[in-house]
Amino acid sequence: MTIINKVNQASDLKKLSINELEKLAEEIRGLLLKKVSQTGGHVGPNLGVVELTLAFHYVFDSPMDKILWDVSHQSYSHKIVTGRKEAWLDETSYKSVTGYTAPEESPHDFFTVGHTSTSVSLAVGMAKARDIQGESGNIVAVLGDGSLSGGLALEGLSNAAELDSNLIVVLNDNEMSIAENHGGIYRNLAELRKNNGQAATNLFTAMGLNYQYVEEGNNVAEMITAFEMVKNSNKPIVLHVHTEKGHGYTPAVTNKERFHWQMPFDLETGDSKSPGSGESYDSVIIDVLTKKIEEQQPIVAITAAIPGLFGLKELQKQHPDHYIDVGIAEQHSITYAAGLAKAGAKPVIFHSSTFLQRAYDQLSHDLAINDLPAVIIVKGGKISGGDPTHQGSFDIPYITSIPNIIYLAPTSKEEVREMLNWALEQNEHPVAIRIPERGFVSAPLAEGTFHPLEWAIEKQGEKVAILATGGFLGLGEETAKKLQEHHVDATLINPRSFTYFDSELLKQLQEKHQVVVTLEDGSLDGGYGEKISRYYGSSDMKVLNFGAQKRFNHHQTMEELYEEFHLLPELIAEDILAVL
Amino acid sequence: MTIINKVNQASDLKKLSINELEKLAEEIRGLLLKKVSQTGGHVGPNLGVVELTLAFHYVFDSPMDKILWDVSHQSYSHKIVTGRKEAWLDETSYKSVTGYTAPEESPHDFFTVGHTSTSVSLAVGMAKARDIQGESGNIVAVLGDGSLSGGLALEGLSNAAELDSNLIVVLNDNEMSIAENHGGIYRNLAELRKNNGQAATNLFTAMGLNYQYVEEGNNVAEMITAFEMVKNSNKPIVLHVHTEKGHGYTPAVTNKERFHWQMPFDLETGDSKSPGSGESYDSVIIDVLTKKIEEQQPIVAITAAIPGLFGLKELQKQHPDHYIDVGIAEQHSITYAAGLAKAGAKPVIFHSSTFLQRAYDQLSHDLAINDLPAVIIVKGGKISGGDPTHQGSFDIPYITSIPNIIYLAPTSKEEVREMLNWALEQNEHPVAIRIPERGFVSAPLAEGTFHPLEWAIEKQGEKVAILATGGFLGLGEETAKKLQEHHVDATLINPRSFTYFDSELLKQLQEKHQVVVTLEDGSLDGGYGEKISRYYGSSDMKVLNFGAQKRFNHHQTMEELYEEFHLLPELIAEDILAVL
Repeated sequence: MTIINKVNQASDLKKLSINELEKLAEEIRGLLLKKVSQTGGHVGPNLGVVELTLAFHYVFDSPMDKILWDVSHQSYSHKIVTGRKEAWLDETSYKSVTGYTAPEESPHDFFTVGHTSTSVSLAVGMAKARDIQGESGNIVAVLGDGSLSGGLALEGLSNAAELDSNLIVVLNDNEMSIAENHGGIYRNLAELRKNNGQAATNLFTAMGLNYQYVEEGNNVAEMITAFEMVKNSNKPIVLHVHTEKGHGYTPAVTNKERFHWQMPFDLETGDSKSPGSGESYDSVIIDVLTKKIEEQQPIVAITAAIPGLFGLKELQKQHPDHYIDVGIAEQHSITYAAGLAKAGAKPVIFHSSTFLQRAYDQLSHDLAINDLPAVIIVKGGKISGGDPTHQGSFDIPYITSIPNIIYLAPTSKEEVREMLNWALEQNEHPVAIRIPERGFVSAPLAEGTFHPLEWAIEKQGEKVAILATGGFLGLGEETAKKLQEHHVDATLINPRSFTYFDSELLKQLQEKHQVVVTLEDGSLDGGYGEKISRYYGSSDMKVLNFGAQKRFNHHQTMEELYEEFHLLPELIAEDILAVL
Repeated sequence: MTIINKVNQASDLKKLSINELEKLAEEIRGLLLKKVSQTGGHVGPNLGVVELTLAFHYVFDSPMDKILWDVSHQSYSHKIVTGRKEAWLDETSYKSVTGYTAPEESPHDFFTVGHTSTSVSLAVGMAKARDIQGESGNIVAVLGDGSLSGGLALEGLSNAAELDSNLIVVLNDNEMSIAENHGGIYRNLAELRKNNGQAATNLFTAMGLNYQYVEEGNNVAEMITAFEMVKNSNKPIVLHVHTEKGHGYTPAVTNKERFHWQMPFDLETGDSKSPGSGESYDSVIIDVLTKKIEEQQPIVAITAAIPGLFGLKELQKQHPDHYIDVGIAEQHSITYAAGLAKAGAKPVIFHSSTFLQRAYDQLSHDLAINDLPAVIIVKGGKISGGDPTHQGSFDIPYITSIPNIIYLAPTSKEEVREMLNWALEQNEHPVAIRIPERGFVSAPLAEGTFHPLEWAIEKQGEKVAILATGGFLGLGEETAKKLQEHHVDATLINPRSFTYFDSELLKQLQEKHQVVVTLEDGSLDGGYGEKISRYYGSSDMKVLNFGAQKRFNHHQTMEELYEEFHLLPELIAEDILAVL
């Protein structure tokens, strides 16, 4: 660790020799691996861009010259050399920086970003703002090849060509997305890589952009030469840079997908420190699909680049015709499913709450207006305290505002299974299923027929009725117990969905209840509880809605959030007793 | 009209000679023009694809072979030859079909669509469903060149290349979008057109697709030859067809943008029958922007392909550096604006409610998380009874569910002006402004300081308080008058936004009021009123929310909808009196 000591700010890199920069790259790699093996985080993307990062800060003058990292999960080296190295050098400072670019941390960061395919559009905007204000400086966007399939990136590239001034798009091509790449554009990238930037056709020049290829993206000297050539370019240009994901750490090179993002791991072997998992909601879902595929049903499981999150690999292997990864293309995943459903197939799309919102119009216009029976599995739908860019607390508002979509709220593996079966058997509506996020629950269903659009009365009481949705059914149970301590025998209801309202039961409740309480694991504004409040608005029933405040949380613990939002049994009980 | 009489179903076209098909094209053009000049509708797009449509049905066997029209506003000829000609031949049947494809009308239509760039993804889905079920038939998507810049279309094309079976994408290239095309991809299309499909690079082959060019897209014989060549192709192929927008009607060829969609017009001259307009919310907005531009402020007015809807042409002419049409690329329009705002410019993005929803994630992740001061003008935000694909009733739910965005609700030109000025002067938050849609209102502001985040008490009364938002302030006034007839002196409040809640005032209302009423010109679920219901949930205040039911309306009149939703002063008053 001799070189890193000399680097306190970005401009310090300019004083180093090529040899020292190469040594620095090795030192940084060591720092990255040491920390991430303990804390978890993005491994492969960061190891791949160390040289590119050093070359950028060697050639350009940040922050007058601006670098915009797409997704920004690959900005660790950038953080290290722009005054934030303590967050890697000093274990007690590990948490002093976030895993994404963060303007509040440094003038070298411009946006809080965590969704892909955004950097080119942001860069075109910054370039236009520079020009209209008569300012100067290079604008550099670093876009991963995986992000290139996202429609927003392609919109941005086409619009970039209209700019008559400086803009540099670094296409960081490590030959893969989170998982392998999917889509015709990747054949063009492969051909360009194979022939040192020459090919019969070229996606980027076809979009009206200048183009240059760099084969050795993990060679500092070569990256410096490349950046020096395009610096101060007065036309938009794509610099196609070939890098290696996981470069310099064998386990990450050998298993690129697993090391895209990794839990804490053993640095020697690369093995994860977390134990393997047994039965899960994933396995319950895959079992249902596998059974139906084996019964010759035209199931098509769809992911937009995150098969690992749902354990889809085995399905892919066993039934490749019934599985598709469309790449980072969330919009397409839904419209494609609409086409499938219309023509008699059974699409099941696997999404996380924060990324599904990229397809809001497709959910509404393509799927819901046509009322087609696609099934959407939604994971990560919950109040979250982590990075603001990855919060899953808005899916109840954005899905339930769309007509025709049934949004189911299972509370156990048994409900997940039966709801999925029901969703696949019906042909009337799009059905989304929100996988509960507060632990794996098994609770045998009551005897008799099960229907997802029937409210389940878990416990009949009086005075207070608790509508506890999805993963918060357990919270409802605990709250009912708390109330019991105060001699209130509350009714507990599992509504099983966010979109069906049992108006008969809601009316009946008015006979023996004074307060209705709603619990939802998400943002309150536009969510579930407000609909119950509206229903009872003209009556004497009092209604209390519990969930998250409308805001983006910034790295708070769940304990803090639960306390603040009164999402603890004793706090909910207190609030109820106060209005009884 | 000799040939059209022989055509009662699509297969009848197969019996006609080329000469008869050419005559039929002329007859259809006459029918299209006669009807649309009386009813209004899409002119240019339909005139351009008459031959293409006839050739399709001559060569292929619909509905086993399937044609998917992107946007589907160009499907009039298709409707005429698939059993629906009475809707053009018989004036009393003019309203018997919609302006878009409609599965409920015919087995030759597959989707209700009205948003662009969707057809390729839908087609890839239908093709996959065909393959997995062992079925056969060609799938043909017809995509306009304007729709090509939309990210969803580009996602779809890249994914199409992964399909190892039949799919035909007809790129209907009439050299323009609704207005002129924008983006680097259009240079490639121009080069391909110029050189009969040859160019140094090719966007479509770069995306992994086969490619073929047809120069004479308005020549039936040539289109038949082209379709016969690609029919039963066992690989996805792009058929790039050069057509003329407005073909065969001089006014529509001469003025392509105005004739994209036209109000009723004089068939001889092409002149519109609607009178020109004077002062409007558009002109108020343009005046504010022009003034600021002339004061050297870095304003950038942005549209995504619909400048005409906002009267932006004059601004474009006067201040070209301060205006940009990004083409059909709604996502990019918002992320681009985030980049502009971050770098000190003042972006003002002009959107309609139904299309802005295509950028939900960009509003949330790119703009709102970074809390950047872009301004968004939202038009068409209202309860609508027309085509389900163009309804603007969901913007209050989807915008107000996102943290940090201020959503203003002006009620008059004076408020529009002052709110826009305020939005441009502040640097704290994204601000969206919903232009009121129930007539042009001028109402001088009260003396003193105006602030958009202060509720305006229009009339102080008691017992009943009406929170009347945006274009429904007039409805609130009428309702208050009705109540007066019943000796109720209601309070009337203009909250001026959908996102700021004056909790002091809300609390005060509890002293002398028993009922709070909310009025919103949009869908109730997840909207404004529910937030007021939630606020008062634990109190004795009764709350009534008035707005639209959550659903896609299908060609109903506003009179029907207002009556059904109780959005008439007498019906609202009745509902209030019933709970008083």
